[in-house]
Amino acid sequence: MNRMAVEQFLQQQKQRLEATLPRYIARLQAPDTLKQAMAYSLEAGGKRIRPLLLFATLHSFEKDPDIGLPVACAIEMLHTYSLIHDDLPSMDDDDLRRGKPTNHKVFGEAMAILAGDGLLTYAFQVIAEMKDDRIAPEVQIRLIEELAKAAGPEGMVAGQVADIEGEGRELSLAQLEYIHRHKTGKMLQYSVLAGALLAGASERQQRDLYEFASHLGLAFQIRDDILDIEGSEDKIGKRVGSDVEKKKVTYPSLLTMEGAKGKLALHIAEAKRCLQKAGVKDDVLQYICDLVATRDH
Amino acid sequence: MNRMAVEQFLQQQKQRLEATLPRYIARLQAPDTLKQAMAYSLEAGGKRIRPLLLFATLHSFEKDPDIGLPVACAIEMLHTYSLIHDDLPSMDDDDLRRGKPTNHKVFGEAMAILAGDGLLTYAFQVIAEMKDDRIAPEVQIRLIEELAKAAGPEGMVAGQVADIEGEGRELSLAQLEYIHRHKTGKMLQYSVLAGALLAGASERQQRDLYEFASHLGLAFQIRDDILDIEGSEDKIGKRVGSDVEKKKVTYPSLLTMEGAKGKLALHIAEAKRCLQKAGVKDDVLQYICDLVATRDH
Repeated sequence: MNRMAVEQFLQQQKQRLEATLPRYIARLQAPDTLKQAMAYSLEAGGKRIRPLLLFATLHSFEKDPDIGLPVACAIEMLHTYSLIHDDLPSMDDDDLRRGKPTNHKVFGEAMAILAGDGLLTYAFQVIAEMKDDRIAPEVQIRLIEELAKAAGPEGMVAGQVADIEGEGRELSLAQLEYIHRHKTGKMLQYSVLAGALLAGASERQQRDLYEFASHLGLAFQIRDDILDIEGSEDKIGKRVGSDVEKKKVTYPSLLTMEGAKGKLALHIAEAKRCLQKAGVKDDVLQYICDLVATRDH
Repeated sequence: MNRMAVEQFLQQQKQRLEATLPRYIARLQAPDTLKQAMAYSLEAGGKRIRPLLLFATLHSFEKDPDIGLPVACAIEMLHTYSLIHDDLPSMDDDDLRRGKPTNHKVFGEAMAILAGDGLLTYAFQVIAEMKDDRIAPEVQIRLIEELAKAAGPEGMVAGQVADIEGEGRELSLAQLEYIHRHKTGKMLQYSVLAGALLAGASERQQRDLYEFASHLGLAFQIRDDILDIEGSEDKIGKRVGSDVEKKKVTYPSLLTMEGAKGKLALHIAEAKRCLQKAGVKDDVLQYICDLVATRDH
């Protein structure tokens, strides 16, 4: 596909996802406040990078992206739960998220915790409830197992713990990478792996794509750190320089800006190498790579 | 089995469960503080009524209880997460649980939230990771689906939301029952259903046992309310009369003590009727019924 077709594909998938998410909440037999609190954060927008990675991976195997819609919704629910809990007063204590008041600012702390718990649990329900003849039961179980690993105490939760424990401390590059590999990396990797599993990728392809996503995840994080210094406030939607103010350890603070940019380029190159090794139709995934490397928000 | 053999069976299952739970935590590749916080609440004791219901149901089909050990551990992890989050300052704000400081009192609020998130997610991982030839993939998926339904926004989380929203308000009997059916009932029902699914129960038996557990769950809750008035502080491990002090709506407050005792007897009788209908070996489940009806802690 040419660049315009790729952009159109991603735009279509995003719209499809955002049309489907509210339906999952609407069908719940649950107290109204809970549904509102869950929907509020789930429908707050964002780049939807994780679901898009899943759809792009399905495309790379020339599979119908629709087969991945429930898992894409589950991934976005799980990501949203992590944002709600991260923003809580006892965690990062953030009042704003994507320019809107955070969940606990609108619904109170108790309801925000429960909305997060609800989204996390519902993510597993959505995958377990899939009745799709094209997906073998063994694959369905693997999708659940890998999601729990990516999100749980060996994945995202471990990263959040390390992030909290590292606050205000000097961190080594290895410690910084541990945080990113777990806090954001594992769920980005899961999004690609889920696409590969749904597409019936070989074990070698699964490994290559998983490594691709690992490099992409680190590149994503390095770009984030660079944007906090060089970005435009209008575009990233938060104040530039907040990391420096909070004395947060970042890639530029550890490696200099030049070093950070070099490392970003390296991970992008490695990501593309893994992609080529996987031997898939790589137009959309390549595009996402370039997007991550050059994004301005 | 005679009464002594039943008691021995339950004691053995409890010991087996409590020997296995720490192993699940020990094998995690996760930050030490997180593992400690998860283990602290998971290993704090308690009646373990949910896992015991699962083992008792397997016994009622003359199945090896060992087949249910991972699911029993997952149930207890999920129950423990709910206690940790319920105790948080923004929820019930409890300092003590089973005579020990609550999780957030020991590890801080952020870590308590994350330990809860970790246990909840790990519960799904434990079931998804089961490699047991005796369990069909379709059954494994159903076990995950039903667990998510019982614990999530249509189950336990809904009950906790209703409980919080009902605080300090007059509640009708229907509203009180909604809270209990969801907050504690659904997970008790899941424990029995999981046993039935693992045992290969017919759909009719699954329905009868599910209804059995519904009555048992309500009986459990009514007995709880009665104990708060008539119980011995030494035995229940918390101050008697705390519901009255907090002006909590309870079965005795809505129905008088006599009415509550009548309703307890009714649910126990109905539970036993459902058990008989299921046509299973009911010695252990009958014993648990009697225990719930007459327990003093």
